[in-house]
Amino acid sequence: MWSGLSGFSLRRLLIGSPLATSQLRHERLTKVKALAVFASDALSSTAYATEEILLVLVLAGSAATALAWPIALGIATLLAIVAFSYYQTIHAYPGGGGAYIVAHDNLGQLPGLVAAAALLTDYVLTVAVSVSAGVAAVTSAFPALYPYRVGMCLALIAIVTILNLRGVRESGTIFSIPTYFFVTMTMTMLGVGLYRWISGGMPPAAPPRIEYPATHALTLFLILRAFSSGCAALTGVEAISNGIPAFKPPESENAGKTLIAMAALLITMFLGITFLSHQFGIVPDEHTHETVISQLGRMAFGDGTVLYYLFQAATMLILVLAANTSFADFPRLSSILARDRYMPNQFALLGDRLVFSNGILALAVASSALVVLFKGTTTNLIPLYAVGVFLSFTLSQTGMVVRWWRRRGPHWQLKALINGVGAIATAVVLCVFVVTKFLYGAWIVVLWIPIFIAFFLAVHRHYRDVAAQLSLEAFGSPPPVRRHRVIVPIAGVHRAVIAALNYARSLSDDVTAVYVEVDPNETPKIRRKWEEWGDGVPLVVLPSPYRSIVGPLVEYVDRIDDKRRRDQVVTIVLPQFVPAKWWHHLLHNQTAWLIHLAFLFRREVMVTHVPFHLHGNHH
Amino acid sequence: MWSGLSGFSLRRLLIGSPLATSQLRHERLTKVKALAVFASDALSSTAYATEEILLVLVLAGSAATALAWPIALGIATLLAIVAFSYYQTIHAYPGGGGAYIVAHDNLGQLPGLVAAAALLTDYVLTVAVSVSAGVAAVTSAFPALYPYRVGMCLALIAIVTILNLRGVRESGTIFSIPTYFFVTMTMTMLGVGLYRWISGGMPPAAPPRIEYPATHALTLFLILRAFSSGCAALTGVEAISNGIPAFKPPESENAGKTLIAMAALLITMFLGITFLSHQFGIVPDEHTHETVISQLGRMAFGDGTVLYYLFQAATMLILVLAANTSFADFPRLSSILARDRYMPNQFALLGDRLVFSNGILALAVASSALVVLFKGTTTNLIPLYAVGVFLSFTLSQTGMVVRWWRRRGPHWQLKALINGVGAIATAVVLCVFVVTKFLYGAWIVVLWIPIFIAFFLAVHRHYRDVAAQLSLEAFGSPPPVRRHRVIVPIAGVHRAVIAALNYARSLSDDVTAVYVEVDPNETPKIRRKWEEWGDGVPLVVLPSPYRSIVGPLVEYVDRIDDKRRRDQVVTIVLPQFVPAKWWHHLLHNQTAWLIHLAFLFRREVMVTHVPFHLHGNHH
Repeated sequence: MWSGLSGFSLRRLLIGSPLATSQLRHERLTKVKALAVFASDALSSTAYATEEILLVLVLAGSAATALAWPIALGIATLLAIVAFSYYQTIHAYPGGGGAYIVAHDNLGQLPGLVAAAALLTDYVLTVAVSVSAGVAAVTSAFPALYPYRVGMCLALIAIVTILNLRGVRESGTIFSIPTYFFVTMTMTMLGVGLYRWISGGMPPAAPPRIEYPATHALTLFLILRAFSSGCAALTGVEAISNGIPAFKPPESENAGKTLIAMAALLITMFLGITFLSHQFGIVPDEHTHETVISQLGRMAFGDGTVLYYLFQAATMLILVLAANTSFADFPRLSSILARDRYMPNQFALLGDRLVFSNGILALAVASSALVVLFKGTTTNLIPLYAVGVFLSFTLSQTGMVVRWWRRRGPHWQLKALINGVGAIATAVVLCVFVVTKFLYGAWIVVLWIPIFIAFFLAVHRHYRDVAAQLSLEAFGSPPPVRRHRVIVPIAGVHRAVIAALNYARSLSDDVTAVYVEVDPNETPKIRRKWEEWGDGVPLVVLPSPYRSIVGPLVEYVDRIDDKRRRDQVVTIVLPQFVPAKWWHHLLHNQTAWLIHLAFLFRREVMVTHVPFHLHGNHH
Repeated sequence: MWSGLSGFSLRRLLIGSPLATSQLRHERLTKVKALAVFASDALSSTAYATEEILLVLVLAGSAATALAWPIALGIATLLAIVAFSYYQTIHAYPGGGGAYIVAHDNLGQLPGLVAAAALLTDYVLTVAVSVSAGVAAVTSAFPALYPYRVGMCLALIAIVTILNLRGVRESGTIFSIPTYFFVTMTMTMLGVGLYRWISGGMPPAAPPRIEYPATHALTLFLILRAFSSGCAALTGVEAISNGIPAFKPPESENAGKTLIAMAALLITMFLGITFLSHQFGIVPDEHTHETVISQLGRMAFGDGTVLYYLFQAATMLILVLAANTSFADFPRLSSILARDRYMPNQFALLGDRLVFSNGILALAVASSALVVLFKGTTTNLIPLYAVGVFLSFTLSQTGMVVRWWRRRGPHWQLKALINGVGAIATAVVLCVFVVTKFLYGAWIVVLWIPIFIAFFLAVHRHYRDVAAQLSLEAFGSPPPVRRHRVIVPIAGVHRAVIAALNYARSLSDDVTAVYVEVDPNETPKIRRKWEEWGDGVPLVVLPSPYRSIVGPLVEYVDRIDDKRRRDQVVTIVLPQFVPAKWWHHLLHNQTAWLIHLAFLFRREVMVTHVPFHLHGNHH
């Protein structure tokens, strides 16, 4: 049965054979490959960021969409500040400077945990948002699939989960394909679009293609809300700073250059998409559910062309890859937290395939739940998104300021200033987020993060407590056991009971068999058989008026235990017959386990299982 | 924790406190009360039987509904034959003559099991059909509730389940209310209806109120299919023969008279409803989903009158009561089968409240699944229904014929003739069922019953096999244990391990500690600590390249076990720390249990758990 369990074929088929610990290794990435691996999350957000800005602006009528451009410029500026700020972190933490580490190092335990809670929350949201947006790329090309979007999202999450459980190493080559495919397609689309715009005689912006009536006034609040939604473009910028050890040496320098390249690409694509959308009068379409960049692609490449479908495929692929990066980040951060004893130990265990399987599964379950709850729609998730990321940005940059101030190395004032600007900028944006998105869903995150932190602290306290109780410091060895009192609960008199009795008698001369009497008519038969087979061991019959087997036994042992001497131990010897086939277990009351469970929580009662194996052949 | 489990308050609240075995008792019923208790299933089928006939006939156009009356007369004749046949069973089996007992007694094991499988299947269907029809009575009065019918069905099943888990004794008084309420209301409705029909100058039958076009030809097959659907009226006729010991003495005589009274009532009501429906031109309404007897009630009592609503309430109540009778019959038959070792032992155990809780729960789950699968609609379930009942009728009557023939008492030829006519009639009808309803759903039952019987036989074979293997007949006592080899798997060196080591040393001088090395960097620390605390016990370090804890341990013990002498046993002593709070379990790998499970299936390896209790106070 055990070999049957470990050889369970479906699991092997999906996940693969176990890998030896010695096979653990990391590929070193060139800058080109590293950009593909670490930038997919950030670059993929251009697929929905512009649309999310427009979706807020149209509440004030179609004309208000003209404001998308200045808002996008603001977001690009913020992105430049954050990237510059992280550039410094990369050089200061060549071993990998995730927000949890930087905040924990420089600001202390609680800020570190806040950053960790914020990041884990956002990793879950990244999966849900990216997969939903990826499916939106598909349903834009094939609107008939729109009703099946939740199912498609769940299927994509399942595929990514299985691949990660198998252990997709950071294989730069494979990961390069979707990223550069998307970058190439987007750049081509922007080029063709720009050409059309210029060759069209550079007209002033076209009027919005769909007329939305103004249902809200165009207030500063609404503009800030649009800005908040667009800031989803900044998620993933921190990825490179987590992955510095994966770069070829000189690691920090290469990582820094890659960060700059990524920021430049991201700003170009985001501004390009926003600009062209405005010029072509593209606005979100509530009826067809077609995404803004799908409309843009249709406009540039032509409806139904191969290039258009390739563009949609590229969008879908990079978004799935973006979801995949969370499947690397979430388990890694959970394992660091588990090693630091803030999360359950299970998250620190390497699975069969050298991946943190429990973290992967937890992320899959959480993100699937989000997709179902928010109906696989990106826009529903946006108000919750990026709150965590900006919280971690702020904490990480603040940590860097403190670090510079404490160390006072060369140019420390300038460095502190750069990170300080980053910290203040992201802190201000964080406040804007909380205020403008609170009622639309950010309250969930604001409520959730403290709960998560309380969980971290409770876990930490528990482990510290257990370690103290198990510690051998100032521990006097226990007195040796001199006397054994052995109890054998029996439900009948048969071979399994005789085997248990035989074992019990080898432990001690003080053995008692105990029979719980549910049906008094059975007792005389048991007594008679016991006289023949009990070999002189006394039999105690406990009446059980309420037909419980466990209750009277526990009471009986309690009475014995009260009279016990300190050098005496009580051992329960349980006859347990083991069926040959797993489904035979269903045909027997698992009384041995129930009795064990009942005794588990009593002090110093040993429980021994004496197995009696049934063979499966029918005669 | 144990006391916490058994005191689990929600369960207590719903189910109540445990009852002592001595509180088991049975009420003796008068004929009037017995009629109410045992007839609800049979009488309640008048609520849908006419409608099911009409639903088939309208396929051949509205005019074909005129055939309902001759079909109903045929069913009434069949009912009289079956009732007369069962009248004899009642006198032959005063201790209760269910089909399983009669068939098993007179025809042998296999026919008995066929009857049992057929009956259990039909009990599940009775719950699903009755509850669906009960909800249809509600949605006929309040059509707005129609979309919620599946939820309402599940809620009714849940209520009946909880009441039965609490243990509703066959309390005649309470059960009388819905039965006689329904009988009174139906008789009043029929009386008022007849009066209206007569006072209207006894016109010839009104034309059908809704014009259905003929989509099928009016073939003999269609007429027989309508007859088959209407035979649902006969389900429940056997109930009295199961319950004879509940009658006041002379039991058989009283039961026989009650059977005749029930048959007379059933025939009157069924024919009355069918006759009036035809005269008033009532046909099933596919749009409003209003039932036929609801239309009839509206016609007789007037739309929106108090009497009409009372009639709907009475219909709903008796149908729920009919479902409830299956909650008595199914667990009782399962417990008889479990005592005869054809069903898992668990079905023979009396629960806290002196009811066969597992049977009740199994019935609830199965009938809820049917309601969901068949969308809470009676008509969808009818093709599956009554097949099992007629199979058990046939077997039971055939068993009676064999019995008369074997015993040859006074008038045995006449008695055999009566039961023979019953057997032949029900066998013919059974064939008609299988042929006419096969494609519409009866194939499920035809497929299911052999599977069910195969299950009975497999269970029986298993228990017989286990009994043989456990038997002490011709059993030589095992040789006494002379030497103990003790293995203590350790994951570290701490107080829990020391406690286990202390216990292990009290069992034997031959103790080995085993450490499975997942991370070689940890090993020197473990060795160092073991030298200080191991008290001279040898420590074996097992490398685990695939990070499995269980695998290397099992292999190690296998190697030892191969060299073992016959008078030596191997005992695994597992240090197990027991957290103070249940949720703390989630923070620890349950390695002790995993190791135990892995060893459970090896021959003669004893497994002892040495608990180390953590306390919950935080310092």
